Amino acid sequence: VDEFELIRRYFVRDSDARDVCVGIGDDGAVLRPDPDRDLVTVVDTLVENVHFAADMSPFDIGYRAVAVNLSDIAAMGARPRWMTLALTLREARADWLEDFAAGLDSAAAAHGVTLVGGDTTRGECIVVSVQITGDVAAGSAILRSGARVGDTIFVTGTVGDSAAGRELLAAGREQEFLTRRFRHPIARVEFGGKLGGAATAAIDVSDGLYTDLEKLLSASGVGGVIDLECLPISAALRSTFDREAQRRLALSGGDDYELCFTADAANLPDSGELMVTAIGKVRPGAGLECREAGKTVDYTDSGYRHFK
Amino acid sequence: VDEFELIRRYFVRDSDARDVCVGIGDDGAVLRPDPDRDLVTVVDTLVENVHFAADMSPFDIGYRAVAVNLSDIAAMGARPRWMTLALTLREARADWLEDFAAGLDSAAAAHGVTLVGGDTTRGECIVVSVQITGDVAAGSAILRSGARVGDTIFVTGTVGDSAAGRELLAAGREQEFLTRRFRHPIARVEFGGKLGGAATAAIDVSDGLYTDLEKLLSASGVGGVIDLECLPISAALRSTFDREAQRRLALSGGDDYELCFTADAANLPDSGELMVTAIGKVRPGAGLECREAGKTVDYTDSGYRHFK
Repeated sequence: VDEFELIRRYFVRDSDARDVCVGIGDDGAVLRPDPDRDLVTVVDTLVENVHFAADMSPFDIGYRAVAVNLSDIAAMGARPRWMTLALTLREARADWLEDFAAGLDSAAAAHGVTLVGGDTTRGECIVVSVQITGDVAAGSAILRSGARVGDTIFVTGTVGDSAAGRELLAAGREQEFLTRRFRHPIARVEFGGKLGGAATAAIDVSDGLYTDLEKLLSASGVGGVIDLECLPISAALRSTFDREAQRRLALSGGDDYELCFTADAANLPDSGELMVTAIGKVRPGAGLECREAGKTVDYTDSGYRHFK
Repeated sequence: VDEFELIRRYFVRDSDARDVCVGIGDDGAVLRPDPDRDLVTVVDTLVENVHFAADMSPFDIGYRAVAVNLSDIAAMGARPRWMTLALTLREARADWLEDFAAGLDSAAAAHGVTLVGGDTTRGECIVVSVQITGDVAAGSAILRSGARVGDTIFVTGTVGDSAAGRELLAAGREQEFLTRRFRHPIARVEFGGKLGGAATAAIDVSDGLYTDLEKLLSASGVGGVIDLECLPISAALRSTFDREAQRRLALSGGDDYELCFTADAANLPDSGELMVTAIGKVRPGAGLECREAGKTVDYTDSGYRHFK
């Protein structure tokens, strides 16, 4: 079985997507964009023993590889459409591939994303690169660089759960909600798609809220302050970790795939059942200050970085 | 240095590309497609010790990662525009990255391709995935599936050189032309862009002429016959390998990155200095027959395949 057959067998799905003229099976995919839309392209790679433990299930690896990219698409205010996969494996095992493809499907199908191409190769470690291209009304993508002094800083959902779930699993423990938040992060695609025209800047929380918000502020050339009492902490996280650990996980745990964005507080779109919490304000200057009871708290960023 | 800084430092180039609204540095790239064009997306991965030897220079790895994708774009009759890079490395060494980026640039700049995003990760082996998106007049992409009975089968340039160069290097020998053909394959982007409306089907020669032409014929639901005397063999290949080896390298060596296509012989676009050779005909039925002096020659496909 060559790599071409591999891809066909495990990843091809019947699709009636009208925007896919040619999918998997030719030298390239042929896609038909809508008029008056910009394209938004994101790519994210997961490497065994770096981004996921060797014992993570193939389903969860496939799911995560898509979810982390959907989260980037959401942070741009775009609509996800087409996906490609570059998959490097030590061996081609049918059960692994079936489970992996099911996870990939599970995350993609929920948002109408079609797998249109890919490349499967043999190598000494598992590397999963997914690229998703979406679209957005021309000129309406949300960047990191648009935050304005006076904007309110918001974050969706709750933060710290995923890192808590990961730490519990590593310690041989489990808590259902936290484990699920780690294993199956939910990208905020629907809400992200409503943020155009409302959010002045946005980023998805992957490295950790503190680090990612710092990046947004720095790209915008502004400073910010957040009130630690306002951080949205889930009941499950509160009941499982002490207050200091909650704070560390919420600020630096990462893998949340929530959206952190800045906006005029009077101009928020309807978020439905998704909680959206104001955590601070954009102000002149540079850097991110953490406050508690109105006083500055010394917080050292320890968000996850490669090649540190 | 985190992966984000890595990408910025080594891969960011000044660009005045009008079709790139946002390049490297945000959650995603924002691209502006031209109206009435289809998108063509290709992705190809190179893995250390599988697609390139561990001692291949970083420049050559970067060059090749782009060239193999450009070749797929050319085979679709498209114009390459935007590129993303997913790069997995054991370590982040400045000299390696500079050399790699120079190779990437060298192959991309010749065709006006802009690097618009990517992800750099740590891992136990070097994996380079490049994705290129191009465009083509809506409905005009050249597929593998359009070959018609009576069409002539053509191939550009000469075949077998690259594999010959690779074999010589592996044996500690060198021949300047063949080594260059292996190290710096030239994707036939310009000619591919002229093939729309002329070629009925096309594929790029990466696995080997025999295997790749078989794929084209199979996708088109037709058979074909080629005359081995017509295979375009370079003078360098003729003078370095015996006749049997020339044939093996030309038919199954692979890594040629020439275009194999079918067309009405009366309807070829101007190929300028690029040699285009008629090597056979499309006929009813299935399979690919090799002929010599009008007689069938038994040829066993031994093109390179992963996970064989």
